[in-house]
Amino acid sequence: MNDEILSITSLQNDRVKELVRLRTRRERDRSHLTLVEEPLVISRALDAGYPLKTLFFCPGRIAPENKYLLDRLLDLSGLECIKVDEAVMDKVSYREQAEGLLLVAPQLIRELSSLELRSTPLLVVLEAVEKPGNLGAVLRVADGAGADAVIVCGGGTDLFNPNVLRASRGSFFSVPTVNADTDTVQEYLRSRNIAAVATSPVADHRWDQIGMTGPTAIVLGTEHEGLSAEWLTGADLTVGIPMRGTGDSLNVSTSAAVLLYEAVRQRSSRKEDLS
Amino acid sequence: MNDEILSITSLQNDRVKELVRLRTRRERDRSHLTLVEEPLVISRALDAGYPLKTLFFCPGRIAPENKYLLDRLLDLSGLECIKVDEAVMDKVSYREQAEGLLLVAPQLIRELSSLELRSTPLLVVLEAVEKPGNLGAVLRVADGAGADAVIVCGGGTDLFNPNVLRASRGSFFSVPTVNADTDTVQEYLRSRNIAAVATSPVADHRWDQIGMTGPTAIVLGTEHEGLSAEWLTGADLTVGIPMRGTGDSLNVSTSAAVLLYEAVRQRSSRKEDLS
Repeated sequence: MNDEILSITSLQNDRVKELVRLRTRRERDRSHLTLVEEPLVISRALDAGYPLKTLFFCPGRIAPENKYLLDRLLDLSGLECIKVDEAVMDKVSYREQAEGLLLVAPQLIRELSSLELRSTPLLVVLEAVEKPGNLGAVLRVADGAGADAVIVCGGGTDLFNPNVLRASRGSFFSVPTVNADTDTVQEYLRSRNIAAVATSPVADHRWDQIGMTGPTAIVLGTEHEGLSAEWLTGADLTVGIPMRGTGDSLNVSTSAAVLLYEAVRQRSSRKEDLS
Repeated sequence: MNDEILSITSLQNDRVKELVRLRTRRERDRSHLTLVEEPLVISRALDAGYPLKTLFFCPGRIAPENKYLLDRLLDLSGLECIKVDEAVMDKVSYREQAEGLLLVAPQLIRELSSLELRSTPLLVVLEAVEKPGNLGAVLRVADGAGADAVIVCGGGTDLFNPNVLRASRGSFFSVPTVNADTDTVQEYLRSRNIAAVATSPVADHRWDQIGMTGPTAIVLGTEHEGLSAEWLTGADLTVGIPMRGTGDSLNVSTSAAVLLYEAVRQRSSRKEDLS
């Protein structure tokens, strides 16, 4: 730490008020900023080289095992660092137990056309995902399965809702996430010969009866409504996950997991080692 | 509705205070009661024939599409019905938007020895699951995959936490859930020739390289700690789910989904229809 670090102890400070406002979508949309919190998520943002604007830190709230993270952040060139006291940190933290580190980061908005895909892409398309926690959970499993990107269409949650970043456990920073119109997404997939596999309770195929070793986009709708007619008729295939109990659907991240790891299974040599 | 229905309009009423106390584990443990809320979850409790003790309802808060559910409940023999006003319902509801129906139900505690298993059982064992939401999410996917039961060992969350019921979307009522000591569970599995398949980041087999067509128990640990040595050495096999991105683990319900549906896939004829 050096002498240039600004220190804030007033809850009425404009920078504190600005942080609180960033919890609203309106302010995030206006400012093109978001909040990054929790040590694991912050670490993964750093590892991914994601640009960061301002660090608010409260030494008294930082656990010993996270001191290295503070040092890493204080060493980062171009990062504005602001020291706050406990009262301020508790006010601006989302979690009951403030962890002493909170970052403001710009919204890096990606375009569909600039996605870098591997030769045999594996994509997830989410239609009208409402809950940030669900989008975050899908990002986490998409990262696990090594998917190229997650494409969100048909409105729904703000991609930069801090709860998306948190629920993704930081996978938000490793899996490119794009918002686009349904028409644009369908044209994008068609022009690149990527098969759109739509999930539906009334499907033509069981999830494991189709091949996903070629370029594939797994398309998932909401739990309540399922996919729109636009996707059900516009997809190349419809697949269903059998429900053997009394419930009628799985959570969207669970459905994504079943389909993504079926693709991983098909794409892996049976003799391949765990890696 | 009939004249015998008790009506409460005071927030200071003892029955109201009792309901609020049921949000704490201490009071649930003491009274052997729990709370059932949300129309979908209540419907599934009714469908499963789960015993219900007391209904608190607020006609002004019940949406038109849930009036049938109120009628079903009012017709139930042996159910004590108490009408409350909006202020009381808002105080006792967990969700911001009270849905006008809240039930108190006894804790039906099941024993491992009384579980009814199919000839080729598929079980889930969860060690030290901390978050009620995670246990609920595992119950939901266990129901989807048609698992026989979910066994919880090594402490952790209260099985009857209302958040478990809620996150399970009511699958709590269709999938038997049992708490037992690790030793007892291991002996139970051994004596019934049920293979314990333990998940681990450092495993001997990939998740799809083992057979799960025989009697199988999928054993999952916590995200942070993984499984205890007791399970890692006591299991018949260890399996891993490859992590192809930058994250180092999946959520426990996602891991359960990948393994359970791999078992469903192996157990299904490839020609079987979706059903």
